[in-house]
Amino acid sequence: MNIDMIRAAQSRLDGHARRTPLLNSPFLDEIAGRRVWVKPECLQHTGSFKFRGGWSAVSAMDPERRKRGVLAFSSGNHAQGVAVAAARHGAPAVIIMPSDAPRMKIGNTRALGAEVVLFDRATEDRDAIGARLAAERGLTLIKPYDEPLVIAGQGTCGLEIAEQASENGIAQADVLVCCGGGGFASGIALALEADAPGLRVRPVEPEGFDDVTRSLQSGAIERNDHLSGSLCDAILTPQPGDLTFPILKRLVGPGLVVTDEQALKAVALAFSRLKLVAEPGGAVALAAALFHADRADGEDVIATISGGNVDAEVFRMALEKSAD
Amino acid sequence: MNIDMIRAAQSRLDGHARRTPLLNSPFLDEIAGRRVWVKPECLQHTGSFKFRGGWSAVSAMDPERRKRGVLAFSSGNHAQGVAVAAARHGAPAVIIMPSDAPRMKIGNTRALGAEVVLFDRATEDRDAIGARLAAERGLTLIKPYDEPLVIAGQGTCGLEIAEQASENGIAQADVLVCCGGGGFASGIALALEADAPGLRVRPVEPEGFDDVTRSLQSGAIERNDHLSGSLCDAILTPQPGDLTFPILKRLVGPGLVVTDEQALKAVALAFSRLKLVAEPGGAVALAAALFHADRADGEDVIATISGGNVDAEVFRMALEKSAD
Repeated sequence: MNIDMIRAAQSRLDGHARRTPLLNSPFLDEIAGRRVWVKPECLQHTGSFKFRGGWSAVSAMDPERRKRGVLAFSSGNHAQGVAVAAARHGAPAVIIMPSDAPRMKIGNTRALGAEVVLFDRATEDRDAIGARLAAERGLTLIKPYDEPLVIAGQGTCGLEIAEQASENGIAQADVLVCCGGGGFASGIALALEADAPGLRVRPVEPEGFDDVTRSLQSGAIERNDHLSGSLCDAILTPQPGDLTFPILKRLVGPGLVVTDEQALKAVALAFSRLKLVAEPGGAVALAAALFHADRADGEDVIATISGGNVDAEVFRMALEKSAD
Repeated sequence: MNIDMIRAAQSRLDGHARRTPLLNSPFLDEIAGRRVWVKPECLQHTGSFKFRGGWSAVSAMDPERRKRGVLAFSSGNHAQGVAVAAARHGAPAVIIMPSDAPRMKIGNTRALGAEVVLFDRATEDRDAIGARLAAERGLTLIKPYDEPLVIAGQGTCGLEIAEQASENGIAQADVLVCCGGGGFASGIALALEADAPGLRVRPVEPEGFDDVTRSLQSGAIERNDHLSGSLCDAILTPQPGDLTFPILKRLVGPGLVVTDEQALKAVALAFSRLKLVAEPGGAVALAAALFHADRADGEDVIATISGGNVDAEVFRMALEKSAD
């Protein structure tokens, strides 16, 4: 895993992925007591950064193998990224999703042309289902984060952050990244190491699902006790990946943890101050930038909004709870 | 009023206004039966295109005169654009707003450093209030649309649309523009005339407030009967401007009219499909693109989202009403 793979992914994504802007608001600066910059990957195709990794992996496949199709496990954002990347390459996609994934994510994945296979998290073994389908149809598995081509794709967002920070005169800053398995954080960290060594990634997780934060503290991979019970469905993963963790350990600063309530407040502030739709899991980094300002250094802080695929009822709740 | 004024405004705005992206979604294309492109000015500073016109006018003022301050009448978006432009130029700003303007817009305008003077639409004469304040303090009035420097500023959005259409291979299309007094529509129309003659502006208004549509039909300025009673507060103006109407008459195609309900549906679709926050008045053009697709020509249609300054309760209502 190295910077050349990220630059190669950038070439493959050129003209296909969106270069998302870097936004700010005086109202957010005031809350945080410093300049807050937001990288809104909710504006990426399929509504999350996962399009980058999906496109990176599918576009790099051998065309003959690609024709047989791809397979992914996902609660929703990786699913949509892979579905669109596959469809635009003329390849079939099978996505195995938990039956309790947000409705919008299941619906979108189907509408984007993928075959969705639902499984019950409590009683069924998704790996067995996947292995059977892959064997039967010759599908290639695209892992959500522990896959070099996927990490390289997510890293292209880091190349953009490096460029945009420089355009705005930001040489030193913490870059807060919403963190599940660590693909986004490790990809961005590798890109910044090469192009903006004054910027340092800090992973941000929801309370109770702080496997990466604890793993960074102990120096060894730690697991979460449970895998549901937070609104931040996009970033609930069992543990950091075997590929991502060594990268995180080498490059990123201490993790930050926010509550679901803080994530919802950040959703409401992205609505009112940035005119952006963020999903709770996609808003944890902004929440950390706004509500844990004391734990980051410097005049500037950069926060990713990793996705915006949120059901209307959860969004309405965020607005209601955060009313003045 | 000519294209050189728009190019000069673009130079003054360079590095200050955001170049908003041009977005799309396969889900919106499917509804409209053609490719729908969205120019999201809700992502502009202060949450609407009005920042462009405000900055254009304030930045062009004689510095001595500017020091004495500026004055604007506005229900909210022009207010915020002028407030920020004035503050960043170190000039005081007085904004005269109706007391029934959306709370968020009044609050933001104050927070952005302007002095807000509220008046009662039913009983008070805002022009008299403005004239008195201007005389007492030597303030310069910045009109919301019937002012060449403001039209030039809004026109910079048209220069961007021309460039972005060309990047996406769009040579012919209707460009649907949310229309109040016509500053945005006439500025964009002048820019497109120069840089993308295959693109044609179509003004879009809320039902019952279709003064521009009727004026274009009759060839003379027509007034609205009333000035309240729509959720589209941003674009409820009495009649097209004396400066904007001749430009509209010469350059734009027939107007389009949408209901408040269609505007709310477009707000909900911008939420789910583009991850953008649009206000109802800012969503009328998208509504026309989606729900009056038969009335536009060509494979592509471009719709502006002119602003996103919407109170949370109205937004929640839009999501609720448009639930599947």
